[in-house]
Amino acid sequence: MGRWEPGAAGRLREAALALYLERGFEQTMVANIAERAGVTARTFFRHFADKREVLFDASAELEEKSLAALEAAPAMASTLDLVAAALDATVDILGGDRVLARKRHTVIMANPDLRERELIKIAHMSAALADGLRRRGIGDTEASLAAEAGTAVYRVAYEQWVYAADDLDLRDAIRRSFAQLRTLTA
Amino acid sequence: MGRWEPGAAGRLREAALALYLERGFEQTMVANIAERAGVTARTFFRHFADKREVLFDASAELEEKSLAALEAAPAMASTLDLVAAALDATVDILGGDRVLARKRHTVIMANPDLRERELIKIAHMSAALADGLRRRGIGDTEASLAAEAGTAVYRVAYEQWVYAADDLDLRDAIRRSFAQLRTLTA
Repeated sequence: MGRWEPGAAGRLREAALALYLERGFEQTMVANIAERAGVTARTFFRHFADKREVLFDASAELEEKSLAALEAAPAMASTLDLVAAALDATVDILGGDRVLARKRHTVIMANPDLRERELIKIAHMSAALADGLRRRGIGDTEASLAAEAGTAVYRVAYEQWVYAADDLDLRDAIRRSFAQLRTLTA
Repeated sequence: MGRWEPGAAGRLREAALALYLERGFEQTMVANIAERAGVTARTFFRHFADKREVLFDASAELEEKSLAALEAAPAMASTLDLVAAALDATVDILGGDRVLARKRHTVIMANPDLRERELIKIAHMSAALADGLRRRGIGDTEASLAAEAGTAVYRVAYEQWVYAADDLDLRDAIRRSFAQLRTLTA
């Protein structure tokens, strides 16, 4: 999910999420989304490949920004610092609108196919992160383990953030989750 | 994947893995597997629901044994000890025949649908582990994080074990991977 954007893409995203929650993902058609957003179906398809991509269209940007942050980290950074830098870079993309994020998460959790899609996206992201670590000279196993552990930290932090009763910040949630992993393994 | 079993189930498993590697999973029919194993298709279906379940039929036993080990762990065990006990219990089921395990892993990695299925099974196992930790009185977030981190450790260890050039033991691979996580987060 991208930042809230003014204009058609943002309105389409809001409309889609509202309809997925009201009627269910399966029961919502692109025509319904376009109508609710006050645009044509053609406009919908200029912004999204299909109704599922409304939920997952931020993946490419997430991967790109995380890997850029990983590459830009100082030479002396530890493996876990590199992972933390990569995860931190996603906050600018995902962390802005918690209400939207909560809606998206609720829609995905309610639908087995979407949950699978989310799992695949996360696995893909973890593999990309491991590759980025290897390019920074981290050994093969350490890279995989750090990427997988970072992904674990992120998933827990994200869920905490999405459902938090207070106004927790995604960045703080990630830091807290990292700290908790350190405590767990100490 | 279960232990190698004498008799029809074991022969069917060997035959299926050989055929999946030779022809590809999609191109292999149940009739081919049965023929190679020297049994009827009817016998195949007495042991496996379909050709995919030859690869995933150990899931229920894995979950059951891991949760039993988690529940049987001493009252003073730390959260990570509980996770380690759960993971250790899978070694008796999976760790016996590395040649078979390597074949299975190669088949799954070569097929996107099977990779998805494997991801879903792993996510399910992680959720079950987190629930088991909660039943032991571990807090909600800590339970999720420990289960996810344990799963990360396990996946890396399993892949190490499957592809190791030397005669690495799965139990040792898991211990080594846990130690590496401790070093990473220290």
